[in-house]
Amino acid sequence: MDFEGRDILSLLDFSREDIEKVFEVADKLEHIVNQRTRIDILKDKILGTLFFQPSTRTRLSFESAMLRLGGGVTGFADAKVSRAGDKYKESIADTARVIENYVDAVAMRHYEDGMPAEFAKYAEIPVINGGDGSNEHPTQGLLDLYTIKKELGRIDDIEILIVSDMKNERVIPSLLYGLAKFDDVKVHLLSPEEFKLKKEVYDNIKKMKLDYNEINNLEEVIDKVDVIYSNVIREKRGDAPTPDQYVVNAKKLEKAKKDLIVLHPLPRLDELSDDVDFTPHARYFEETKYGVITRMALLTLIFGRENKI
Amino acid sequence: MDFEGRDILSLLDFSREDIEKVFEVADKLEHIVNQRTRIDILKDKILGTLFFQPSTRTRLSFESAMLRLGGGVTGFADAKVSRAGDKYKESIADTARVIENYVDAVAMRHYEDGMPAEFAKYAEIPVINGGDGSNEHPTQGLLDLYTIKKELGRIDDIEILIVSDMKNERVIPSLLYGLAKFDDVKVHLLSPEEFKLKKEVYDNIKKMKLDYNEINNLEEVIDKVDVIYSNVIREKRGDAPTPDQYVVNAKKLEKAKKDLIVLHPLPRLDELSDDVDFTPHARYFEETKYGVITRMALLTLIFGRENKI
Amino acid sequence: MDFEGRDILSLLDFSREDIEKVFEVADKLEHIVNQRTRIDILKDKILGTLFFQPSTRTRLSFESAMLRLGGGVTGFADAKVSRAGDKYKESIADTARVIENYVDAVAMRHYEDGMPAEFAKYAEIPVINGGDGSNEHPTQGLLDLYTIKKELGRIDDIEILIVSDMKNERVIPSLLYGLAKFDDVKVHLLSPEEFKLKKEVYDNIKKMKLDYNEINNLEEVIDKVDVIYSNVIREKRGDAPTPDQYVVNAKKLEKAKKDLIVLHPLPRLDELSDDVDFTPHARYFEETKYGVITRMALLTLIFGRENKI
Repeated sequence: MDFEGRDILSLLDFSREDIEKVFEVADKLEHIVNQRTRIDILKDKILGTLFFQPSTRTRLSFESAMLRLGGGVTGFADAKVSRAGDKYKESIADTARVIENYVDAVAMRHYEDGMPAEFAKYAEIPVINGGDGSNEHPTQGLLDLYTIKKELGRIDDIEILIVSDMKNERVIPSLLYGLAKFDDVKVHLLSPEEFKLKKEVYDNIKKMKLDYNEINNLEEVIDKVDVIYSNVIREKRGDAPTPDQYVVNAKKLEKAKKDLIVLHPLPRLDELSDDVDFTPHARYFEETKYGVITRMALLTLIFGRENKI
Repeated sequence: MDFEGRDILSLLDFSREDIEKVFEVADKLEHIVNQRTRIDILKDKILGTLFFQPSTRTRLSFESAMLRLGGGVTGFADAKVSRAGDKYKESIADTARVIENYVDAVAMRHYEDGMPAEFAKYAEIPVINGGDGSNEHPTQGLLDLYTIKKELGRIDDIEILIVSDMKNERVIPSLLYGLAKFDDVKVHLLSPEEFKLKKEVYDNIKKMKLDYNEINNLEEVIDKVDVIYSNVIREKRGDAPTPDQYVVNAKKLEKAKKDLIVLHPLPRLDELSDDVDFTPHARYFEETKYGVITRMALLTLIFGRENKI
Repeated sequence: MDFEGRDILSLLDFSREDIEKVFEVADKLEHIVNQRTRIDILKDKILGTLFFQPSTRTRLSFESAMLRLGGGVTGFADAKVSRAGDKYKESIADTARVIENYVDAVAMRHYEDGMPAEFAKYAEIPVINGGDGSNEHPTQGLLDLYTIKKELGRIDDIEILIVSDMKNERVIPSLLYGLAKFDDVKVHLLSPEEFKLKKEVYDNIKKMKLDYNEINNLEEVIDKVDVIYSNVIREKRGDAPTPDQYVVNAKKLEKAKKDLIVLHPLPRLDELSDDVDFTPHARYFEETKYGVITRMALLTLIFGRENKI
């Protein structure tokens, strides 16, 4: 993929080489974040952060990434503060053809599936999907993979347990499509029956020959996996606690491999116990740092500035 | 007008020379937007965007304009996130005397007529009216005129049809006051009876000797006009469609002059059909680009930096 | 105190020397604000403004301060636009460990007492308390003291009347803790019985040997004081006017010392009459300017950049 000017909509569009290209640029940018400094390779550019659905981490992560690269940021944090989201129901096509005149790239979150792709159809500027409905969250998927690479040392030849509402949590398809590009990855999926993957996601991962199976209890594989990807299982649960078979806690991790890493896209509820924070397995806060680095890499690439670092 | 330090509150205050001065500076800045770059002539300044009423395009357009000139931006997008708009009901005079200590100029939208002017009375910094109640929207008026100049080649000697709720849409007075400064402009006004211009606006345009008349159906003048300014006619309509006589669509434009241009301040509803997008007449998306350029010109002028471009 | 990397949570933590250090840096930065310009000593840094409770002046003041020093800003203006504030109820500990990866310092307002301190426990970056519940508002306290120093010429040897809801207005404890560090300060407290200081605040100021007494009517001390600190007395009042004994107006000030200055953290209601604006005693708008300068000084200090000015 030639990244310059490209939209980042789905990890289905990424080859292994594409993912590795992002990681290569991320590696070169990591010191900017570690040293808490800023460079100016995007000082002539403006990013629009269009969040039709509230978000702390994704929006601030994108804004931080753009600021660390010297760029400017404008946008909105809530559809309600924008006519684009109110009763006037401006079409996303119109919004796209307007916004492209204000900013040089867009990071967009939307409560409806496919809206960033629809926006991208009409806007000539690059569009990054910051999460759409229950469809995908490709930058989260990339940062999850980058965290695995950095903290485990490899993505090939790993065994990963994913515990999540697979149906509604948009990062899951992105993560699976990313994992499918690597070799000898074995995926264990754990979720309540009613929150299994959507049919199209099953179809996609089968077509990609991802080696996956479905299990009923975290403890079935706890001693075998290299990565646990914990995530909320929230719908219809109301205030009821997460059933124990889906909960990750320190006690269960006693049976884990020494090098196991635990990830979570955050925010977490009770499915990931606070006592995991104090085990050597926790990597979910590091994940958010890798998120800034990954998004810096993507911004650098879509503006074709990787040679300026 | 010496623009430096001035408030931009109403197009009534602009002479033809003032408008042309804005356009002259806009012409010099256009390449910044076309090349998607930024300069630093306002790098020492901060713009406050005070939006007491939600807006996507006007706020982002101002913020983009300031960022493209190298300036900093702070502000709020919604009165609800500001005590200034809540039950404490701080007077606009107090808000003005506070905010002027935080920023070097203000772009302000308010749901009430006259609030930017009231703010300007108390603040020593320049204030740009970003739309107040049903009163005026002078920067929209300026960008509309600039679009006409750039896309039609002239503002003198034109015939323009304006289809709008004339009473509640604040851009209409601004547009009319601007048009009145040019020569041989003929204006056709089309709106439902209950949404005609407010009396003070009639008084103003009569005093300015603007040549206008009122018509009942778009098709009466479709073959004569150089510009159609379409706009929403929304109040009391609820979900009922816009009556056909006020709708602009591709079919009606078949009878239009070859060089006719169609403008709309956006967002649009059904009064401007999507099929117009594919005719050679559509200029409403270009309008938003000219909006950034016009606002860059105004910011440059109120800070007295036109010689730094 | 070595300011670099420190949290600014409470004025209890400040010695007189600390306060004077802030003022010394503020004095060096004052010309930046007076000349309406920007410098670049923090151009490599990003400030996160995390406002879990709406605010105009404090948030914009912090953002202005950071922009004037050349830094970048991201954040949120309302908990509702952040998952951090919604039904998912992410713990502040998690929010802290996430946000510290996005920004280099935080200015935080929270509706609950102690939340900035809790955040600071988990974040490695410096945290500035921008007001928490009814607990403290240390930067407001500092700017109040700085205003007294600049406008009265001294903080030692003054007599000050504070008229406020002492119980709920978080700036009052901060102001008292600050005043207690100076010599020969005499404080008169005036509030309705039900809005007296909280017990812990009484305990603290007694321990600090602050010379205070409580009075029942502003007019008891009007001819003696050097400073009146007016503030809202709002709870349970609904729309009822502030009782006259707590109201500051021009008529009452006729009996005041010639050099008396009147402060108010703003926004004001009817407890501070507009007619005071036209007396030589009013300093509450200047206060907001000193607020930017004070916050610039704090930001400079926590980043250890005071030698770069």
